[in-house]
Amino acid sequence: MTIKDVFENPDKYDFDVDQLGECVIDTPVKTANFIQDGERTLMVHDLEHVTAAIKAGRKVPSFEEAGPRRKIFHDPAWTRAAVVTCGGLCPGLNAVIKGIVQCLWYEYGVRHIFGVRYGLEGFIPSYGHEPLILNPDVVEDIHQEGGTILGSSRGGQDTRQIVNTLARLNINILFCIGGDGTLRAAHDIAEEAKRNKLRISVIGVPKTIDNDLAFIGRSFGFESAVYASGSIITAAHVEAKGAPHGIGLVKLMGRDSGFIAAYSCLANSVVNMCLIPEEPFELEGEHGVLTALERRFSIGKTHAVIVVAEGAGQDLIKGEEQKRDASGNLLKKDIGEFLKEKIERHFADKKENVSVKYFDPSYSIRSVPARGTDAILCYTLAKNAVHAAMAGRSDCVIGQCASVYMNVPIALATIERQKVDVNGMLWQSVVDATRQGEYMGYEPLVGR
Amino acid sequence: MTIKDVFENPDKYDFDVDQLGECVIDTPVKTANFIQDGERTLMVHDLEHVTAAIKAGRKVPSFEEAGPRRKIFHDPAWTRAAVVTCGGLCPGLNAVIKGIVQCLWYEYGVRHIFGVRYGLEGFIPSYGHEPLILNPDVVEDIHQEGGTILGSSRGGQDTRQIVNTLARLNINILFCIGGDGTLRAAHDIAEEAKRNKLRISVIGVPKTIDNDLAFIGRSFGFESAVYASGSIITAAHVEAKGAPHGIGLVKLMGRDSGFIAAYSCLANSVVNMCLIPEEPFELEGEHGVLTALERRFSIGKTHAVIVVAEGAGQDLIKGEEQKRDASGNLLKKDIGEFLKEKIERHFADKKENVSVKYFDPSYSIRSVPARGTDAILCYTLAKNAVHAAMAGRSDCVIGQCASVYMNVPIALATIERQKVDVNGMLWQSVVDATRQGEYMGYEPLVGR
Amino acid sequence: MTIKDVFENPDKYDFDVDQLGECVIDTPVKTANFIQDGERTLMVHDLEHVTAAIKAGRKVPSFEEAGPRRKIFHDPAWTRAAVVTCGGLCPGLNAVIKGIVQCLWYEYGVRHIFGVRYGLEGFIPSYGHEPLILNPDVVEDIHQEGGTILGSSRGGQDTRQIVNTLARLNINILFCIGGDGTLRAAHDIAEEAKRNKLRISVIGVPKTIDNDLAFIGRSFGFESAVYASGSIITAAHVEAKGAPHGIGLVKLMGRDSGFIAAYSCLANSVVNMCLIPEEPFELEGEHGVLTALERRFSIGKTHAVIVVAEGAGQDLIKGEEQKRDASGNLLKKDIGEFLKEKIERHFADKKENVSVKYFDPSYSIRSVPARGTDAILCYTLAKNAVHAAMAGRSDCVIGQCASVYMNVPIALATIERQKVDVNGMLWQSVVDATRQGEYMGYEPLVGR
Amino acid sequence: MTIKDVFENPDKYDFDVDQLGECVIDTPVKTANFIQDGERTLMVHDLEHVTAAIKAGRKVPSFEEAGPRRKIFHDPAWTRAAVVTCGGLCPGLNAVIKGIVQCLWYEYGVRHIFGVRYGLEGFIPSYGHEPLILNPDVVEDIHQEGGTILGSSRGGQDTRQIVNTLARLNINILFCIGGDGTLRAAHDIAEEAKRNKLRISVIGVPKTIDNDLAFIGRSFGFESAVYASGSIITAAHVEAKGAPHGIGLVKLMGRDSGFIAAYSCLANSVVNMCLIPEEPFELEGEHGVLTALERRFSIGKTHAVIVVAEGAGQDLIKGEEQKRDASGNLLKKDIGEFLKEKIERHFADKKENVSVKYFDPSYSIRSVPARGTDAILCYTLAKNAVHAAMAGRSDCVIGQCASVYMNVPIALATIERQKVDVNGMLWQSVVDATRQGEYMGYEPLVGR
Repeated sequence: MTIKDVFENPDKYDFDVDQLGECVIDTPVKTANFIQDGERTLMVHDLEHVTAAIKAGRKVPSFEEAGPRRKIFHDPAWTRAAVVTCGGLCPGLNAVIKGIVQCLWYEYGVRHIFGVRYGLEGFIPSYGHEPLILNPDVVEDIHQEGGTILGSSRGGQDTRQIVNTLARLNINILFCIGGDGTLRAAHDIAEEAKRNKLRISVIGVPKTIDNDLAFIGRSFGFESAVYASGSIITAAHVEAKGAPHGIGLVKLMGRDSGFIAAYSCLANSVVNMCLIPEEPFELEGEHGVLTALERRFSIGKTHAVIVVAEGAGQDLIKGEEQKRDASGNLLKKDIGEFLKEKIERHFADKKENVSVKYFDPSYSIRSVPARGTDAILCYTLAKNAVHAAMAGRSDCVIGQCASVYMNVPIALATIERQKVDVNGMLWQSVVDATRQGEYMGYEPLVGR
Repeated sequence: MTIKDVFENPDKYDFDVDQLGECVIDTPVKTANFIQDGERTLMVHDLEHVTAAIKAGRKVPSFEEAGPRRKIFHDPAWTRAAVVTCGGLCPGLNAVIKGIVQCLWYEYGVRHIFGVRYGLEGFIPSYGHEPLILNPDVVEDIHQEGGTILGSSRGGQDTRQIVNTLARLNINILFCIGGDGTLRAAHDIAEEAKRNKLRISVIGVPKTIDNDLAFIGRSFGFESAVYASGSIITAAHVEAKGAPHGIGLVKLMGRDSGFIAAYSCLANSVVNMCLIPEEPFELEGEHGVLTALERRFSIGKTHAVIVVAEGAGQDLIKGEEQKRDASGNLLKKDIGEFLKEKIERHFADKKENVSVKYFDPSYSIRSVPARGTDAILCYTLAKNAVHAAMAGRSDCVIGQCASVYMNVPIALATIERQKVDVNGMLWQSVVDATRQGEYMGYEPLVGR
Repeated sequence: MTIKDVFENPDKYDFDVDQLGECVIDTPVKTANFIQDGERTLMVHDLEHVTAAIKAGRKVPSFEEAGPRRKIFHDPAWTRAAVVTCGGLCPGLNAVIKGIVQCLWYEYGVRHIFGVRYGLEGFIPSYGHEPLILNPDVVEDIHQEGGTILGSSRGGQDTRQIVNTLARLNINILFCIGGDGTLRAAHDIAEEAKRNKLRISVIGVPKTIDNDLAFIGRSFGFESAVYASGSIITAAHVEAKGAPHGIGLVKLMGRDSGFIAAYSCLANSVVNMCLIPEEPFELEGEHGVLTALERRFSIGKTHAVIVVAEGAGQDLIKGEEQKRDASGNLLKKDIGEFLKEKIERHFADKKENVSVKYFDPSYSIRSVPARGTDAILCYTLAKNAVHAAMAGRSDCVIGQCASVYMNVPIALATIERQKVDVNGMLWQSVVDATRQGEYMGYEPLVGR
Repeated sequence: MTIKDVFENPDKYDFDVDQLGECVIDTPVKTANFIQDGERTLMVHDLEHVTAAIKAGRKVPSFEEAGPRRKIFHDPAWTRAAVVTCGGLCPGLNAVIKGIVQCLWYEYGVRHIFGVRYGLEGFIPSYGHEPLILNPDVVEDIHQEGGTILGSSRGGQDTRQIVNTLARLNINILFCIGGDGTLRAAHDIAEEAKRNKLRISVIGVPKTIDNDLAFIGRSFGFESAVYASGSIITAAHVEAKGAPHGIGLVKLMGRDSGFIAAYSCLANSVVNMCLIPEEPFELEGEHGVLTALERRFSIGKTHAVIVVAEGAGQDLIKGEEQKRDASGNLLKKDIGEFLKEKIERHFADKKENVSVKYFDPSYSIRSVPARGTDAILCYTLAKNAVHAAMAGRSDCVIGQCASVYMNVPIALATIERQKVDVNGMLWQSVVDATRQGEYMGYEPLVGR
């Protein structure tokens, strides 16, 4: 089950989200923009492809449009909603929380909103985390601060216990703000609730600073993260230029996908090499990173800036001996520190002087608040999550494509982690912008 | 001729850009991502609409995909390209210039690139502005600075003189970075060149901080402008709260369209009223701005923040008596100063104390450099402009939709200024976020 | 009575602050750094001068060192302190409020702290402003926001009413955070309290973004204001370079003194002319500003950046009646708009094209929070204000010199507004950095 | 030889800088502010102390005032000046370089200015680093970028070779921008030059981001470093609050002195513990850091922020061999990683959940440009270095005290590294602000 397969064999997949039951309640929302049932947005925009499919009567991938509806499923008066934030921090968490609370409170009149503390832990009684009571006053200024007022935690918890807690507290709407793992957990919660005949809307807001969820377009926080990486890359450039054969080495987020690394290199055109998980690389040899540095220095360049995604080059580390900490635990190898050490040793062996300055800024990047258009994305995702919930959708996450917001089944959003296509336009642009193809010996060295 | 009509009667319009002649030269560009002839991207994404149109054999609006092609029209060896920036400053101008120069130089091997100084003035010999010679060294660091290294100017120049200059200098590619007016001028240049049998590719890069060009998606600089407005709106909020019945009044760009004002209000949720050109408003009376302020104060709020687009409420100013400067010239009325004066007088008449702090930050906002994803937009627009030019397209401007870049005929991009739809989702969100409907008496006052 | 006279005839002046009575209570403060009675810090650091004075037995200007003392006057258990912020906003107001509350609460155990709302208005019952109850929780995060949580207002109020309110509420310590006018009011309050046999410590914290108080060293907020002016001056530079003969004109704070303008020009070396109240200038004629611009353009420069303090060139603006603001300060006619008009008209008359971009950023500058070392200054002034108050000092304001903090009589701090010495080092540096002497024809034109 | 001894036994020390010979040349500098011979500024400001010393005829520590003089030693026409930047990066290096070049060029008319590349390496022919030719055009915009356009390197080079190079190139003025080690090298160069009868002015500009040089007041870059630490500490606070028992751990610069750590804690009042080299601490036991964390959690706090200077707690790290860097400085073992591991293991052993987020931002902090008042400090130090050099001073470094600039003998500035006085006001303020005395069990736990 791959993203590619979804596009190639759409008939095998279900593009519709779960619906808890018939919508019979009049919405209190006042707007001229109600979404009609059946309004769907295409996921394929290629004229030829779409035309052929439609003429042949084949299914074209599309999702239901998100937004407010005239009839809703949950009665605002008895609605008890919960919000939980899971996994690592990401810019905009507080903005999403604020948006959810405001939309529930002001547009639907919901008055019982609970903030679940410290991720899924907050559902497990034994942790003893009391929920926050949320209302517009509590969330008034939170969008200006990074992080999440709810706290977060990594890792799963027992689905039954979570659903028991939801049942015990009479929660009928659950907003899960989280990434791949969290959304899978949300899917399990939705299914368990269904098995228990509980009419709980489980709605995901896609939080993935790595931008690696399928079908959801740009995820919130990504834009702010790319923005925040700018000052770090500038610092790496300054440090690199400040020493003879100085090398500024920056590790950015991206366990399985190199989107942040790739975008940051495009946004900051001082980077000379970008290393991502999707594109394996060597150290030594004709196309190796070390040889690339030598090639760059050989044409008179006195510095270099390298950006590496945290998940890049993991195959290189596997072969290395790993250290153990005092308790005997294997210390996880860090590709950044690994590269730093290899580069230093390589040039030391050649009696050449290099100075590697290593930057590992992930916490600083992910803890900023979302601003500007990224803040708008947070707000709009939040509102559409509320609209989906009130209309009784479940097991669904909000996606976005070309300014249109959509209700996407969680199963599709998590079918596979979205990755940088190394044969595609984005990666081509990175290679063009860094000119790393030349340094790495894949193209004749023109220099810059 | 309206945008609406293009969508409703697509058969009346031509969605294809001009082509100077057959492409017979092999491209020097190395990539796996060549665009094939006929690749087009849909401008309508509504499943039902598209299906109906295709089944009925009706045209569906679509544009040619932008990008590199295997065969190009202009021979890089003899190509002489010129770049000109026109109109007011906008974040990202230098990033676009850098992107154009880099793509021409490194990917196509073009070695003759001229920077036309001070907008269209730079083509008119009598101004005496010598062009800059551009190459990768000259543009190396320019993306880090706001503004344009070429300088700019407003206003048109004689098309014949411009084309004469292009002919005299043997320019075969002209990049016009500019907005509505500039693109119309580019269109005239392209037509005049055609009349003179000159094979000049005239390619526009859409520069409109107001985001008011049709069919081009988000224009570059807009994201940075929205971002930059954040600190001003924060300052207005701080000042408003610092005085009894303090009112922070911020005028933002937007002569005919309120996109920046609307987006800035969504991105900074401390704004209580947003006034844009598309939505007329009154001062006095039940739904007036002054009454709205009174309503807000009446529920115990001690401050207010108002954002007004520069083109809003122009009908209110017309009735006012205007002052003349010492030379007897009519002084142009500024809606910001007008509102400030009216608010102060209104409350003074009621013997109530207000303190209006007026912010007019436009120059500070538009002179920042583009950063983050906005910088990537600049770079990608620039590259695609070069690809379009080398492939012999002309009278065309680069647009973008859902990460796909397109070649759009200038005639369509300038058919009408795009405006905020006051019945649409964006404006609805602004009204929800500010709650101005309540203050203005259109909805019951719930307060906040 | 001038600052100069204080230094030249110190025997005529009293350098000691008021003391409400004997200090007989043991302090609860735990520190190894108690100030001993009689510890004083010199205000003159010139070896020769000091040596001569001491040998001759003449008084040398000096102030009592500020800081905690072993014995205090006010009993923390019954102390009721009030804090008021007056006048225009200034970076760091919230940091000072926080510092005062924390020091009172944690170090002295004071539990009754009132925040007087909206400046001196807050003391006058008829305004109806209820005080805020202050404690460490309330002030926890306020230092991160600009402005003042108390609100502020300009203008004096009846001293008797203020003292009546203090007496009625049993306030025995009053912290006045404000500038020249506020400190004079504080002085009156202290005297009126004395006349009424009220033992009220009235302590000033010097708030003057213009840095124009005497004997107090650098005032808080000044550093942040200079910092904040940087982005505006950069914007002015970008705009100026963006147009043929572009002129970026920036008006900065400085009603009577040009410290912010002068410092900002030194901190941002792109400014070509700095105009301050202390140095009169002409428009026309050999040394005029207009002629200076012509001289600059005559050597091939295509842009100019001018910084003007709001109080500069007031003599040039004639024929308009002047207003006073609520504090009774003469409202300055806007020198920035005046200059803009004059420059435009001058070059228009000569049929020469200039483009003046005018920046009036004062609200944006003064509403930022204090950060970095400026935040430390706020905190340390606040603590020393508390120490002075608890030790029974009154009619005193906290000053600072070379990292030593001092208790300065308000009468001396307000004896005269401190001004930029146009024959001194600071102004010399500005003239050197801008090279305006050359443009203005006072020195041969070397150009830059 | 200690700083304390200098103040206690001033008669044992020489407070005068070297003078290469008689000043007989008229200065080209135009100013009303010439410094007279014999103008000295006191280093002691305590009235009692100074009075007693003067009356008793004892020496009072004082330094010659820096600034321009009517007669100078070096002839501008034949002057060949060199500038070198040494050691780690520091905010403001480029601003100092720019200031030196501008003052030499514009005020003295010096036309031969060399930028020595990559620190002292640049003097050693075998490295092959060609000097940069410096003039106002080259340095025009450099102040806006962090780092140094000259590059830098750590470590000493052979003094004779350096002086040989100076002699061979006919350099008669050398500006050394560097810290403790560099200034000692400069002292050696000055002495070696003297031995060789070379009339070379060796002038230091004190670069020490740690603020640890004696008698020079606040060093340039320090203010910007404290400012830049703010966003990191905020990020640490956000991360700490985002996890149950989250701990944000920030390592800041400070090999031997904790000034940056201490100031950053004062400037960002979210820090709960500050650890510096001057104040030893334990991990376990009643007053240990681990116990302190437990105490903080025991009163219901769910997070903690710790700032640790890189040189703190070195005694705790045992059993590892220590390395030296190229400058011969002992490389400190990483106290941050050590603490992270210890904290994690401690709570893991207790089966308690903590989440330590470690920040090591030093490169990001030191590579920013100097802005605001820090930029002015750079400029003024640079100008006074030039004035000292032209007047034939040597073996001297520019200091500053209460806005007065002074020529300080290098021998005194490097007599001992200045440290935080743990019995003084600064540290007291840090302890008050963090309340770490309570957590560490030195004071009763009041909590916060």
